[in-house]
Amino acid sequence: MIRAARIVLFVALAMLARPLAASELRGTGNLGIVIERASGSVMIVDAGAHRMLGRVDGLGDLSHASAVYSPDQRYAYVFGRDGGLTKIDLLTAAIVKRVMQAGNAIGGAISDDGALVAVSNYEPGGVRVFESESLVQVADIPAVGANGKASKTVGLVDLPGRRFAYALYDAGEIWIADFSKGKGPAVTRLSGIGKQPYDGNVTPDGRHYLVGLFGEDGVVHVDTWENPLKATRILDGYGRGEEKLPVYKMPHLEGWAAAGGVLLLPAVGRHELIAVDLRDFKERGRIATYGQPVFAVARPDGRFVWVNFAHPLNDTIDVVDTLTMKVVHRLKPGPAVLHMEFTPRGHEVWVSVRDADRVIVYDAATFNKKAEIPAAKPSGMFFTARATRIGQ
Amino acid sequence: MIRAARIVLFVALAMLARPLAASELRGTGNLGIVIERASGSVMIVDAGAHRMLGRVDGLGDLSHASAVYSPDQRYAYVFGRDGGLTKIDLLTAAIVKRVMQAGNAIGGAISDDGALVAVSNYEPGGVRVFESESLVQVADIPAVGANGKASKTVGLVDLPGRRFAYALYDAGEIWIADFSKGKGPAVTRLSGIGKQPYDGNVTPDGRHYLVGLFGEDGVVHVDTWENPLKATRILDGYGRGEEKLPVYKMPHLEGWAAAGGVLLLPAVGRHELIAVDLRDFKERGRIATYGQPVFAVARPDGRFVWVNFAHPLNDTIDVVDTLTMKVVHRLKPGPAVLHMEFTPRGHEVWVSVRDADRVIVYDAATFNKKAEIPAAKPSGMFFTARATRIGQ
Repeated sequence: MIRAARIVLFVALAMLARPLAASELRGTGNLGIVIERASGSVMIVDAGAHRMLGRVDGLGDLSHASAVYSPDQRYAYVFGRDGGLTKIDLLTAAIVKRVMQAGNAIGGAISDDGALVAVSNYEPGGVRVFESESLVQVADIPAVGANGKASKTVGLVDLPGRRFAYALYDAGEIWIADFSKGKGPAVTRLSGIGKQPYDGNVTPDGRHYLVGLFGEDGVVHVDTWENPLKATRILDGYGRGEEKLPVYKMPHLEGWAAAGGVLLLPAVGRHELIAVDLRDFKERGRIATYGQPVFAVARPDGRFVWVNFAHPLNDTIDVVDTLTMKVVHRLKPGPAVLHMEFTPRGHEVWVSVRDADRVIVYDAATFNKKAEIPAAKPSGMFFTARATRIGQ
Repeated sequence: MIRAARIVLFVALAMLARPLAASELRGTGNLGIVIERASGSVMIVDAGAHRMLGRVDGLGDLSHASAVYSPDQRYAYVFGRDGGLTKIDLLTAAIVKRVMQAGNAIGGAISDDGALVAVSNYEPGGVRVFESESLVQVADIPAVGANGKASKTVGLVDLPGRRFAYALYDAGEIWIADFSKGKGPAVTRLSGIGKQPYDGNVTPDGRHYLVGLFGEDGVVHVDTWENPLKATRILDGYGRGEEKLPVYKMPHLEGWAAAGGVLLLPAVGRHELIAVDLRDFKERGRIATYGQPVFAVARPDGRFVWVNFAHPLNDTIDVVDTLTMKVVHRLKPGPAVLHMEFTPRGHEVWVSVRDADRVIVYDAATFNKKAEIPAAKPSGMFFTARATRIGQ
């Protein structure tokens, strides 16, 4: 009986030991991660409770890191700058698997069925694709453009139908890899799109893929519902005839919502957003902002777009009313505002303030501060609701 | 030691006993419920694994039942026809709380912050609002219209900013209740909107609230970004000059996506969908369908709209291509196709076939059948991703 008791005790203790702060039975719809760049760690957070549930270390170089989620919203896939791809279990705050899939990488995406994770690489270039369950590599797509050279890839997003779209920075091309027939992709190549595409994103419906050019003033548009696919230049020469400003930080193309059928894009090296009409992709006006925009993130209802800025004006957020196309509010969260992430239905927004070592939660309607959460040099923040969205 | 062993054994058994099929540590992003109308039960399903995790009984009259989810996607709030409001824990497959909040009810909504659940009542009419945590009532809003009579309410949806919109069937009014200042709502009343509003819904961005009229051919539009609010008639007399057909079942306004800025609405008593332009709310054409549409549900990318039909043509689904505005595919899932629910990024669709006692899962791109799941007279199906959407 004593032996039996010992076994039972061991079982009971093992069961009691398993739960970490994060590992009790809980829903995962409200969870998220905050990238802590300097320490190579991520915080697991509860967006409803405004608190940290756990911390996971050992993720390597997390500068410019991003993340996507499994459809069940239990696992995060974190894309590190050093080529590390790490699968994290949010419920146990543990690393499930980690692979060094390349020497230098710049983000990734997960297929619409959740089966495939793709990573965009700088070194050796190209895109590598992994089974999301095991992180076993299933495809390697070198990005050798029409110029014959291996290229870095950027702006990788998922499209409906097990597809991924991305741009070739060195070759000036857009490729769409279609995995709908299995693990060997059919790749469509659109070449000669322009100089140095630096980032890309797709509209929330997964239809229109847009790529920003760094080597010239312009944006490239692909309507992925067209057959055959073609790339069209829009906003050509948007800075023409004006003095070029130094570019302190490349803007990101992220967090779009189409308000009244219009997207707001950050212009490169300029203190403004450009409004683009989703019906004809022509310019519909510009909005003067406090600094050079880095992120222009729409509140999920599209009514307001929150904008942060490049150094040295990166202590400020402008809020643009998309009905009037004017800045209606200006916040000063603190030094080095790096990212903004809205709750799924947009009632709150999390703001990472790197040099204040904190995340601030604002009421997205009143702009009142609701909470502050200590974090070590926080940068990107990603909530699990991204699992439900196309192009994340 | 033996006494201690017994205590440990009891603790261990209690811990072992707790897990049901559904209650192991798991993410909740992929879960959902299927309403089993005849038996007053709901199935908890795993949309990724195509299987049932558990069943919860004792929910009363579930004809016309619907559900919303807590932001953490752990709890479902099921709105029964008999006025029952039931909070279900998806992880333990158990009823957390159940209240009979009225004598006869027709659906509900949850506020954007997840704090308030509102229910639309036929008997005694009006809307009642509850704390989502406790199901304690916090507001009772009788719907006494300008005609002085208590009205049934329909078409209840959440709007951004802790608001709810709904229509008064007997009074011909639209009300918007604003809880942003606390538990006592500010109510805006728009009267004289037309005869017998029978259902309403809001565009996915939460901006445009549309209400269908049964007493006359027409739809009512409220742009909730306008100040002051006003109701405008659109599609006036859409059936004018044509013979009225008998109406076998009222269509629902649900599952909209705006493809190319156009919504497809089911017309009352007609074999067609009406395309409405989101910029000016004018008609942009009609699509002939197999029968009288009940649901016209857009795939999340908006490219295709799946349509089911009223008795006696309810064994069929039409798939409309929103680019060409034509029916491109027709399926025959079986007798009494009652509902369709897409996975969040639209790679699959679940179809409930009541009189075949099964749910069929289709590949939403190829139309291939991927799975069949036995269910007892299944009707409505609701996945947890609805927690991330405005107007659900």
